[in-house]
Amino acid sequence: MLNLQSPLTRKLSAFVALSESDLATLSRFDRRSRTFQAGHELIHEGQTKASAFILSTGWACSYKMLPDGERQIVDIQIPGDFLGLRSVLFRTSDHTIEAITRIEASEVLAHDILDAFSHAPRLATAVLWAASRDEAMVVEHLVNLGRRTAEQRMAHFLLELGARLQLVGLGDQTGFDCPLTQYHLADTLGLSAVHVNRVLRKLREDGLVTFQKGRVVFDDFPRLRDIADFDTTYLDQDGPILR
Amino acid sequence: MLNLQSPLTRKLSAFVALSESDLATLSRFDRRSRTFQAGHELIHEGQTKASAFILSTGWACSYKMLPDGERQIVDIQIPGDFLGLRSVLFRTSDHTIEAITRIEASEVLAHDILDAFSHAPRLATAVLWAASRDEAMVVEHLVNLGRRTAEQRMAHFLLELGARLQLVGLGDQTGFDCPLTQYHLADTLGLSAVHVNRVLRKLREDGLVTFQKGRVVFDDFPRLRDIADFDTTYLDQDGPILR
Repeated sequence: MLNLQSPLTRKLSAFVALSESDLATLSRFDRRSRTFQAGHELIHEGQTKASAFILSTGWACSYKMLPDGERQIVDIQIPGDFLGLRSVLFRTSDHTIEAITRIEASEVLAHDILDAFSHAPRLATAVLWAASRDEAMVVEHLVNLGRRTAEQRMAHFLLELGARLQLVGLGDQTGFDCPLTQYHLADTLGLSAVHVNRVLRKLREDGLVTFQKGRVVFDDFPRLRDIADFDTTYLDQDGPILR
Repeated sequence: MLNLQSPLTRKLSAFVALSESDLATLSRFDRRSRTFQAGHELIHEGQTKASAFILSTGWACSYKMLPDGERQIVDIQIPGDFLGLRSVLFRTSDHTIEAITRIEASEVLAHDILDAFSHAPRLATAVLWAASRDEAMVVEHLVNLGRRTAEQRMAHFLLELGARLQLVGLGDQTGFDCPLTQYHLADTLGLSAVHVNRVLRKLREDGLVTFQKGRVVFDDFPRLRDIADFDTTYLDQDGPILR
């Protein structure tokens, strides 16, 4: 059962002070909990009538394949995130969602969302907020690819992950556990794996951030933030604005 | 008053068959109609307590400025689009919205959205769909910047604009009127203005698409679509799925 400790509840609480009735409605999203192994494709591009999921433990990623076989990772999903919210609203899923680690996720059907919205309009607004926040992140990634250097991209991406994980209780200002490989980083940031390695070594040697043995450590958080021009405004997570 | 002919109603009708009561709720969004001149900033990055708007005539764009003074256009808005939906949900607006032409737009406040959602849950789902569609477009632009050549980017962007305009009755398969300058195209596609000119000339000389005197003409739609690998799936606009 979803409760005040669940990652999704923690996340939505950053936008709206949830009532008992909102929480009861949210808990109905958690009836069909399932476990998937690392590498499992929950939703694939082109699939019709796909479900959505709410991720409760583990990491996933959404991506699109290009005709030349290249992969562009659109976003990384962490606990509390929707997986494929668009897939459940759209006729045809426009992206693939894959489990990066073993994950637990609850399946959400289109009528669950419609039901929830008719019982809890504040919750509907909170879900719209969460979807808008996802869009804001994609916008930042677009700015990353369009206008930032490889080092700035990497710094920005790691800081963003850190802030998102902190909101759901999975990281702090010192750093976070991170199951991503250099291939995930390459496909997210539009770099080659060799380039990713070089950028990470440079950032480590400059005393800014270290990513080793599955952990990201912020060695100099303020300086890293300056280099990335990282401003958490677009994550909008400083406590409920709707009470 | 919003009606079946309004661009927003046409757009949302692609997702949901709107009831009389949904239409009545939608029409309340149209109480505060305003006119803005070309170049006017409706919302600026960093602004707190910004409103949102629904664009009824004219074109606008949303962008972010980078510290080095470069501008990244995130999306172009056409009639029927929300301007700054995130601005009204977020504490601080994470982007700027500027009128490209003279525009008419209706102001929407946060409590308008909450009111509408409590009266019309189907409408709430339709607005979530529209927001998800906006996100899908930003995702495509990200793929554009990350993995496509300059010619593919331009072809994809012009085809996307054409499909969006067609949905709201402002274009067809032959082309559309377009007020964008080479600077808008450059800031959208991450190219220099000189490069934009070169790419447009190449596409014209190859008999694919002509952009001259404020009009885009698709000279060879099927071949252009192949080059851009353009698939309208992500726009999800083939008639209502929720009845």
